[in-house]
Amino acid sequence: MIDSAAHPRPSPYRVEDHLRQILKLLEKHRLVETLVDRDRASPRHELIESLVHRQHLVELQLKLRSLHPADIAYILEALPLEDRLLVWRQMPDDQGGEVLLEVSDAVRDSLIEVLDRPALVKMLSQLDADDLADLAEAITEDVLAEVLQTLNARDRDWLQTTLAYPEDQVGHRMSQDILTVRESQRVEQVLWLLRGREELPPNTDCLFVVDARHLFKGVLPLPALLLNDPQKHIAELMITNPVLFGPTDNADEAARAFERYDLISAPVINDRGKLVGRLTVDEVMDYIREESEEDVLNMAGLRGDEDLFAPIWDSARNRWLWLGVNLCTAFIASRAIGLFENAIAQIVALATLMPIIAGIGGNSGNQTTALVVRGLALGEITPENTWHLVFKELGVGLLNGLVWGVTVGLFAYLLYWNLPLGEVMAAAMVLNLLLAALMGVAIPLTLHHLGRDPAMGSSVLLTFITDGMGFFIFLGLATVFLL
Amino acid sequence: MIDSAAHPRPSPYRVEDHLRQILKLLEKHRLVETLVDRDRASPRHELIESLVHRQHLVELQLKLRSLHPADIAYILEALPLEDRLLVWRQMPDDQGGEVLLEVSDAVRDSLIEVLDRPALVKMLSQLDADDLADLAEAITEDVLAEVLQTLNARDRDWLQTTLAYPEDQVGHRMSQDILTVRESQRVEQVLWLLRGREELPPNTDCLFVVDARHLFKGVLPLPALLLNDPQKHIAELMITNPVLFGPTDNADEAARAFERYDLISAPVINDRGKLVGRLTVDEVMDYIREESEEDVLNMAGLRGDEDLFAPIWDSARNRWLWLGVNLCTAFIASRAIGLFENAIAQIVALATLMPIIAGIGGNSGNQTTALVVRGLALGEITPENTWHLVFKELGVGLLNGLVWGVTVGLFAYLLYWNLPLGEVMAAAMVLNLLLAALMGVAIPLTLHHLGRDPAMGSSVLLTFITDGMGFFIFLGLATVFLL
Repeated sequence: MIDSAAHPRPSPYRVEDHLRQILKLLEKHRLVETLVDRDRASPRHELIESLVHRQHLVELQLKLRSLHPADIAYILEALPLEDRLLVWRQMPDDQGGEVLLEVSDAVRDSLIEVLDRPALVKMLSQLDADDLADLAEAITEDVLAEVLQTLNARDRDWLQTTLAYPEDQVGHRMSQDILTVRESQRVEQVLWLLRGREELPPNTDCLFVVDARHLFKGVLPLPALLLNDPQKHIAELMITNPVLFGPTDNADEAARAFERYDLISAPVINDRGKLVGRLTVDEVMDYIREESEEDVLNMAGLRGDEDLFAPIWDSARNRWLWLGVNLCTAFIASRAIGLFENAIAQIVALATLMPIIAGIGGNSGNQTTALVVRGLALGEITPENTWHLVFKELGVGLLNGLVWGVTVGLFAYLLYWNLPLGEVMAAAMVLNLLLAALMGVAIPLTLHHLGRDPAMGSSVLLTFITDGMGFFIFLGLATVFLL
Repeated sequence: MIDSAAHPRPSPYRVEDHLRQILKLLEKHRLVETLVDRDRASPRHELIESLVHRQHLVELQLKLRSLHPADIAYILEALPLEDRLLVWRQMPDDQGGEVLLEVSDAVRDSLIEVLDRPALVKMLSQLDADDLADLAEAITEDVLAEVLQTLNARDRDWLQTTLAYPEDQVGHRMSQDILTVRESQRVEQVLWLLRGREELPPNTDCLFVVDARHLFKGVLPLPALLLNDPQKHIAELMITNPVLFGPTDNADEAARAFERYDLISAPVINDRGKLVGRLTVDEVMDYIREESEEDVLNMAGLRGDEDLFAPIWDSARNRWLWLGVNLCTAFIASRAIGLFENAIAQIVALATLMPIIAGIGGNSGNQTTALVVRGLALGEITPENTWHLVFKELGVGLLNGLVWGVTVGLFAYLLYWNLPLGEVMAAAMVLNLLLAALMGVAIPLTLHHLGRDPAMGSSVLLTFITDGMGFFIFLGLATVFLL
């Protein structure tokens, strides 16, 4: 629950309203600048500019103060670069760090870039160790070292421990906000201890039970404290076999466990059974969102997260890797055509028809690939069922090949009144769709076995094969049967 | 927290272990069947078969009993159809309903299909009204009517109310499990009332405060009950301006609000200020996962959710819509080539080079589309910033067009020692990438404005334009400048 500005009927829509208000403020601000630009010489205008200017900026600062950091993050992401930086410069230091936590990676980089080092260190030193761990990759080593100095010894240790785990492991994402109790305590003792605190860590749905050596014993759901007799012992109420994670567990699988068992928080236990941290649903939800967005962008051939309003140069570079790969594969596919220039010179219709074979092969293969990428993401594809999947996809490919092959064959026949041409077209379609089915399964599985993200580039590789081989099969069959 | 089978070190990996154990059981089961098949005649074999058979099935049932419904759902999804139905038939009635709740839509259909009506009704009558609401779309009207008879009047009303809201509205996804308190009550009274209950509804992080007419007043976080003096009044402790939703609010925006403000549960209030339901994080997390998967599948041209092991015929049909659309667009694009058969007959190299222009245009446009689809999903694209986005993407397109245009132009020149051909190639690349950038923004935005899912088919439409126009531009320029 969050304390947001009082509204008669607050709703999720209001964040767009805030964006609109800020856009209006920025517009007024720009209008003044344009007016002044027109008449630079007059000192009176300069005075007015600086006054009106300042008034708008104060208004902007007040507006920002009233917003939740996550709302500010959303607004910054939706603003074109110039406006974004104007708003960002008005951000109070004590809010800036929280906002950096909430924005997407690409936008975060654009915000950090314009801060000088002291300002950045000041902002970051407002955050706790868990939050700093989330930001650590975005800042340079020396800034991180400087911020570490501002932490106490315990927080510094914690930060260094979590940063030692790779990004896709649970240890990197766990938090140190843990409330522990002992088995031997009674409910009333725990209640009394809790009352001494001002608040509980966010997402606390249970307390963790440990022994004197901090070995994990179980979890005590908060409702158990509320629903039971205050005289009962924690040992009677705790759950001794909850879902728990190790710090080196894969974050993907942890996220799936949170979804599967509807968890709010879960303990992280090291190999010796010691409680080392806590994983919470908000962190998991962010992770799921990040990963699924990454899949969509990767499948389309973007290298990484891209800011919607990134500078043109940055955007272009983010896309070059896969465009470059695509260019190479397109060259190779085009050489497959080059082999048959003689056939094309004799039957020009081949050039007209060949993109149909290649295009539908690519589309059909991509359908298979999307299904396999999702199956891998959900952990549903195992060595035992892979062959079933291959045979099923080959079956679908054969069926689709026959249906669409006959269709395009008929089309070619009607267009050119050439029956053998139609037959070659149909046969090429069947073969290319079978190939597309096979490759649609094989490419993401191979990438997965090589430890790569199966979404990454599988579409470009697949299209390369369905294009190149599509041209080759069609023109090859045509050379054999039509010339 | 879930009570799972006691393990020395339970971890998220164990669900795959369960799958492996079940696969082993199924393999033994099949082995027996094969042995018996070989020697059908002997009555002794039949006896053995039925004994061993039964033993395996009992083992399977015991195994299933020990598993969480979400784990069974995962296992069913990962099993090929035949094995899946074998396992499903061993499912105890009291677990079956929960499993249906957890499996994906496509797999759910395959499970419901094989149940006769009395078995289905029996399974469903084990579920509460909230769960039935989630399943309602998967079952026929008359089964639903029959299950409604087994509910009490209050649950029946509730089910009919929630089902009246469309699937993408909050009202469809809210639950009726609400704990309410009054402003005038003291903490100790509330604690006393809670102790009378056996458990709290899942995902209860706060109680809702209402007045005598059930008008919503605020929320009371559970920790407030634990941390404060038992003599305090609820009115002093409640939060009066929490994030709340209306039943007709868009589920997408509600999901984003949950992520943004890290909510566990939130009240749903109708227009007159009455508390009507509760939205919880587990429902929201499922929604986010479903939607993002749907985006990935839709962008690849699958009509809906598809079971990894669906029968070939069902799978093929699920893909026909977009393959059919693709076929039509490919025909039209191929006619663009047909217009220039004369040019190709004179310069066969044109046929070899044209797929490069079309392919890179498609790839580049898809990068833009993916970015816009994501921006729309996050609500970051507004009428105010659309032009910024268009200009930025045109800028990227121009830059990429120049870089890759010169590259392919040089390649064409070196391959055919024909400078004008290289120049035409470069010019066509620049024009097609500009077009791809424009369409990459325009297509998803138009689909969005028409109230359609921008991911749905935008890739097929885009490829149509970059292919068709790519061929047209390249061959047109060649006709003008090279013939």
